[in-house]
Amino acid sequence: MTVLRLGQRYVRDDRTLTHLCLVSRALGAEAIYLEEVEKDIPSTVKEVNETWGGDFEVIVGRPSKKVMAEAKAEGRKVVHLTMYGLPLQEKIDELRLADKILVVVGGPKVPGYVYHSADYNIAVTSQPHSEIAALAILLHEVQSGEELKRSFGKSKLRIVPSARGKRVVES
Amino acid sequence: MTVLRLGQRYVRDDRTLTHLCLVSRALGAEAIYLEEVEKDIPSTVKEVNETWGGDFEVIVGRPSKKVMAEAKAEGRKVVHLTMYGLPLQEKIDELRLADKILVVVGGPKVPGYVYHSADYNIAVTSQPHSEIAALAILLHEVQSGEELKRSFGKSKLRIVPSARGKRVVES
Repeated sequence: MTVLRLGQRYVRDDRTLTHLCLVSRALGAEAIYLEEVEKDIPSTVKEVNETWGGDFEVIVGRPSKKVMAEAKAEGRKVVHLTMYGLPLQEKIDELRLADKILVVVGGPKVPGYVYHSADYNIAVTSQPHSEIAALAILLHEVQSGEELKRSFGKSKLRIVPSARGKRVVES
Repeated sequence: MTVLRLGQRYVRDDRTLTHLCLVSRALGAEAIYLEEVEKDIPSTVKEVNETWGGDFEVIVGRPSKKVMAEAKAEGRKVVHLTMYGLPLQEKIDELRLADKILVVVGGPKVPGYVYHSADYNIAVTSQPHSEIAALAILLHEVQSGEELKRSFGKSKLRIVPSARGKRVVES
C-alpha cells in the first residue's frame, strides 16, 4: 500500500504532514508521496526508521497526476478519501480484494480530476473530521487489523508493551 | 464515550487539537475535555454542530486529574492511549464490555499519575505515529465500526454519498 498526499504546502501544515507520514508508516504502508514539503519531513521519517525499524519511504516532488497514473499502470486501485464519497463500510469487502492500493489523501483543495480518475471515492463518515483519522481507519480496515501486529524488523529501540509505565529496550 | 486531551497549549498545536475534537465528534464521542486552548476551537466545533448536526461538546479548563477522577466515580473505564501500553488487539474484547469510557489522549508530556490511575494503558501499535490516528482507531474498534453508520440528526447540510463528485443538500 502506498499513500499520496495532494496539494501544495501551506502555513502551519507541517505537523499534519508529519502525522500523515508516521501513520502511513506505522499502519503498514510502504511509502508516501508528498507534492511539496516545507520542513524537514523526510529526515524526520528517516530518523524514525533508524530508531524504530522498517524502510518506509517519503517521496517528494512527483506530480500527483503522474503518481496516480503510474499506480494504475502497475495495477494499483486508487482510493481517494473524501467525505463526499461512498461509505467505507459498503466498499470494504471490495477494497480488501485489491492486490495493491494507492490511497489519495486530500489537501486544502482537491482538483476535480482526482474524483474522476480514482477507482473509488471513499468516505470515513460523511462528517468533517481529519484526513489523518480517515487514513488510519482506511489502512486499518483494508488490512483487517493485521497491521497492528506487524514487526518492523531491525531497530535501535523497541518498546515492550506494559500495563503501566514505559519500557523501552535496545535491540 | 468521552475524550480528555492532556496538557497545556503549545505553539502550533491548534490544528492537532481541532482534529482531535472533530474526530471525537465524527466517531461518536459525546464530549472532549481540553485543559487549555489557544484558539477558537469551541466556536469552530459549535459551527460544525450547527451545520452538520449533533450536540458534541468541547469542555475547556477542567483539570485533568479531576476529569479522570469524576469519570471513575461515574463508572467510566479510563483508557489512556500510549505507545508504551498493551496492544489494542489484546484488550479490545474487554474494552467493548465497558459501559462508558473516558479516552485519555497524551499531549507533549504525560505526567506519571496518568499511567497509574488509568484502568488501561493501550497502544495502537508500539510505533510512534499520531494521537489523532490512535484515537480514531480506538473509537472505531470499541464501537465495532458501528459509529460509521451514526446519524447526526437535525442539521443545515447533509452529504449524499456519491461514487464521483460532491453532493450536498440542505436538510
